[in-house]
Amino acid sequence: MFSPLIDELMSSLRCLPGVGPKSAQRMALYLLERDREGAARLASCLDKAVEGVGHCSRCRTLTEQPVCGICNNSRRDDSLLCVVETPADVLAMESAGTFQGKYFILMGHLSPIDGIGPADIGLDVLLSRLQAGNVEELILATNPTVEGEATAHYIADQAKAQNVKVSRIAHGVPLGGELEYIDGGTLAHALSSRRQI
Amino acid sequence: MFSPLIDELMSSLRCLPGVGPKSAQRMALYLLERDREGAARLASCLDKAVEGVGHCSRCRTLTEQPVCGICNNSRRDDSLLCVVETPADVLAMESAGTFQGKYFILMGHLSPIDGIGPADIGLDVLLSRLQAGNVEELILATNPTVEGEATAHYIADQAKAQNVKVSRIAHGVPLGGELEYIDGGTLAHALSSRRQI
Ligand SMILES: [Zn+2]
Ligand SMILES: [Zn+2]
Repeated sequence: MFSPLIDELMSSLRCLPGVGPKSAQRMALYLLERDREGAARLASCLDKAVEGVGHCSRCRTLTEQPVCGICNNSRRDDSLLCVVETPADVLAMESAGTFQGKYFILMGHLSPIDGIGPADIGLDVLLSRLQAGNVEELILATNPTVEGEATAHYIADQAKAQNVKVSRIAHGVPLGGELEYIDGGTLAHALSSRRQI
Repeated sequence: MFSPLIDELMSSLRCLPGVGPKSAQRMALYLLERDREGAARLASCLDKAVEGVGHCSRCRTLTEQPVCGICNNSRRDDSLLCVVETPADVLAMESAGTFQGKYFILMGHLSPIDGIGPADIGLDVLLSRLQAGNVEELILATNPTVEGEATAHYIADQAKAQNVKVSRIAHGVPLGGELEYIDGGTLAHALSSRRQI
């Protein structure tokens, strides 16, 4: 409908999650009509990030540095290692503001159906880190999904074989959550995980 | 929070309309984790569009061609000229599928407060087109907003001085619209524009 360069821009914007044809059209026209500077800056940032961003050699998170800022932070406790699925999970954990250890980011979870095995989520790297002997407690914070639980169990077995203490973050009713809006699975878990007070 | 290249990518994604900090974060991580090819293609399309896309010399719409496809289409009627505010409006009109004339795109509307005067919306170009004498009817399809109406009135006065027939598209209750959900202003307009049947 529009000229080729504009049509191609619209179609390429669809690679962004949550952007359908209507939003892509609105974005393309907005950028061309009103913010070409922003568009050029976005293009350059995309190029630089695609080119430069790799994985931290210690924790596997996304970073353009050989070792990321958290791994490099000597004020953080090396003996506590928290395993999460994605870099966004690190951000969520950090927003809690109470964890002072380090992270290991799987960049996914075990998924045999999709051909994602232990090596694909860096478990060889994690294992050699546990074998090095500095980690005293491994905290498993994978998602409470079928795949996340399976991944946590698999990692727990490996870590216990190395005599590392393993824990799993608690799951249950969120603080401030109203029981009537919580799903049954969560409630069943909260009930079976009840603690005497 | 993330490394500089990732933080900059997140902030540059905010130039997209409707993208807040949370979506920008989700988009950046998604692209880096799962679609670097799409990200590279988007960067290249942005660059090419910013570099190549200008305005049609006849109708002012966005295009990388000197004259756009619609202006160049000799099967369309040159004597009917429809004035709209944006390229997206052309798309909306075309989706109606009944207009066979040509367009003139203002790329905005008169807005004295923002310093947008007649020359900024191409009225000099439009006037010389009317003076050339091929246009028999000028159809004003600016938005039914205060600025759109003011712009339509201004253009109507100029066109009438050139002895060109001027019309305004009808406004009222949309087909399939239920009266109880239509705003009062639209209903008042629909009432005062009633036609005898
Ligand atoms: Zn790291
Ligand atoms: Zn044109």
